[in-house]
Amino acid sequence: MTEITLSVTGMTCGGCVNSVQKVLAALAGVQSAEVTLSPGQARVLFDPSVIARPALEQAVIDAGFGIDR
Amino acid sequence: MTEITLSVTGMTCGGCVNSVQKVLAALAGVQSAEVTLSPGQARVLFDPSVIARPALEQAVIDAGFGIDR
Repeated sequence: MTEITLSVTGMTCGGCVNSVQKVLAALAGVQSAEVTLSPGQARVLFDPSVIARPALEQAVIDAGFGIDR
Repeated sequence: MTEITLSVTGMTCGGCVNSVQKVLAALAGVQSAEVTLSPGQARVLFDPSVIARPALEQAVIDAGFGIDR
């Protein structure tokens, strides 16, 4: 398992946090996702043989939020 | 073009509204999506030969929100 922390932009309430959490947790290869509003971060534990960082970032973007790289 | 209004649950701020709007507008076949927080609704104009209501609803659910049917 690999753990990374993404800087997520555009989350402004608990509903946003919930949205990002659900989107990440639903991806194949993701074991867990912990998302916080302040700071706007997603800590993701995933199997690197199944999914990689760009796909995690894209899922956040597809959900209508942003990534600070 | 067909226009439908979805009842979207779980949106609690402008960030949520923005998320749902972007997710719907990004779908192939969707011409426009207008999302409001109160009431929680998404008015979607789409080409029914390309996409149908269940796919619109699923996109909202995949983004971490809900649909009142």
